[in-house]
Amino acid sequence: MLHITIVGMGLIGTSLGMALRSANRMESPLGPTTIMGYDRDSRATATAWAQQAIDRQARDLKEALYRAELVILAIPAQALPELFAAMAPLLASGSVITDVISTKVQVLEWAHTLLPETVDFVGGHPMAGKEQSGAAAAEAGLFKGALYCLTPSPQACQEAIQLVEGMVRQVGATPYYIDPHEHDMYVAGVSHLPFLLSTLLVEVTSHNSNWHAMAHLAATGFRDISRLASGDPEMHRDICITNRAAITHWVGEMITLLCDVHKQLERDEGEELLALFDRARTARNHWLATRHARRPDATVFDLQYQDYLRAP
Amino acid sequence: MLHITIVGMGLIGTSLGMALRSANRMESPLGPTTIMGYDRDSRATATAWAQQAIDRQARDLKEALYRAELVILAIPAQALPELFAAMAPLLASGSVITDVISTKVQVLEWAHTLLPETVDFVGGHPMAGKEQSGAAAAEAGLFKGALYCLTPSPQACQEAIQLVEGMVRQVGATPYYIDPHEHDMYVAGVSHLPFLLSTLLVEVTSHNSNWHAMAHLAATGFRDISRLASGDPEMHRDICITNRAAITHWVGEMITLLCDVHKQLERDEGEELLALFDRARTARNHWLATRHARRPDATVFDLQYQDYLRAP
Repeated sequence: MLHITIVGMGLIGTSLGMALRSANRMESPLGPTTIMGYDRDSRATATAWAQQAIDRQARDLKEALYRAELVILAIPAQALPELFAAMAPLLASGSVITDVISTKVQVLEWAHTLLPETVDFVGGHPMAGKEQSGAAAAEAGLFKGALYCLTPSPQACQEAIQLVEGMVRQVGATPYYIDPHEHDMYVAGVSHLPFLLSTLLVEVTSHNSNWHAMAHLAATGFRDISRLASGDPEMHRDICITNRAAITHWVGEMITLLCDVHKQLERDEGEELLALFDRARTARNHWLATRHARRPDATVFDLQYQDYLRAP
Repeated sequence: MLHITIVGMGLIGTSLGMALRSANRMESPLGPTTIMGYDRDSRATATAWAQQAIDRQARDLKEALYRAELVILAIPAQALPELFAAMAPLLASGSVITDVISTKVQVLEWAHTLLPETVDFVGGHPMAGKEQSGAAAAEAGLFKGALYCLTPSPQACQEAIQLVEGMVRQVGATPYYIDPHEHDMYVAGVSHLPFLLSTLLVEVTSHNSNWHAMAHLAATGFRDISRLASGDPEMHRDICITNRAAITHWVGEMITLLCDVHKQLERDEGEELLALFDRARTARNHWLATRHARRPDATVFDLQYQDYLRAP
């Protein structure tokens, strides 16, 4: 019986519990499991329990970590250093810790500094989510078919990595080993820049003195491009703070492009703008058409994983 | 029997034909109609006919406009001046012309200069669409429940305006009278700025040397925020060219905001960023929750329409 503890009963933590418990136990790579849930807000823990995301509710961190073999941390990034410090004296030797936070370099540094050497840390980031937050929005199928990035600490042992990989497969996701620096730079472009643009679109329009009249004309295009602005503000803030350098890079690139467009709008007869819209449509449609076909399969992960472990 | 002609068998023109023909003729504000369709590309006209969007196919503009009482122009903005000039000698006195183009000031200027004084022009802009283009993507229900902006020429007679309003109601949309300058400025913010941001997100990421690896990590957030980048490049170019001033204004505002965020990422401990994400979430959720309730009803349109006609 594998003892799993999930700390943080928000959208991701609760969804992971639901996915783990609803998986076919006969085919589970983890074997029989029991899941303990804990959140500082005991109402969130109760909601998760009512949704059958966890087997038992812990009243405090000590109870949560008692006998835990695999600990999944699904809390905001900014709360992680304090939690690591509080967990350190409570963790059994040989236990495996993973997280679900969207930035990985900073998290691995904190794990290295704050966790005891007797435990193994394997960073994780499921490429799934939705703009609602909280246990009540959780879904067992949230991770089905999604990529799940894994960034093991260089000190993590093979068994620890395999345990986390088993958890990833059990929730229906595909493990994807990646260098943490590359992860943070890429995700800043395809995930963090989008929520910033979404937020700034809402900011720039809703602060206009004519917003009340404009709002009538906002239709499906506005609705979709602004969707990520409804995401959890604290999560977005934490991502910005823990991935400053990479996000700053992409924001700088976007400013350059917008300044180009500003100039083109003034002087261009339309040729440069047409070329821009053509390129973007082609690139987006190609991505859309090939995104599932191009997805690397398990063999590639293994190779990539070997490369990653060999890297200095 | 009202003779309607639709010029341009793309997504909007074909969808309008389908919506007009599938409307309940017993309740139609227009009475019995017959719809002639014309496109320079005769295959598009044939596709529209096969989709039951039109009753008859015209082989040339002269045939298309013969006996036409209401002419709906659903073509790219850049093609409009040439079409107005070609139509001018063919139009019967008293016929009513409308369009579906996303910018209105420029279109009204062209209509004033190029159309004969014996016809009435009522500008139109349905607030509906999708990223696919062409007759094959058309849907009879595309305009159901959508706002449909109307900007009558100051010279248009009451009957002409009522005829176009009847057409709008028959396709299931809600007429919304608005000053053309306000229309262009508002739509630039809630519709044109979004497709530019969507396009630039794809441009900035897909031109990165690591795009091949990044593309694996792009998930639903990227998919949704980049959706409008798949729209018709020529339509986007035409919108930029015919609504330069308003779009330039919003691009400038967006550059200012992005520069603010760039600075905040460097120095902020997270308070300003948190406030930004909080404000945007509140504004977006409020818009989402109230957008249908706040929609002005027909009485308000009538009042607004009176105001608009009284305006100097």
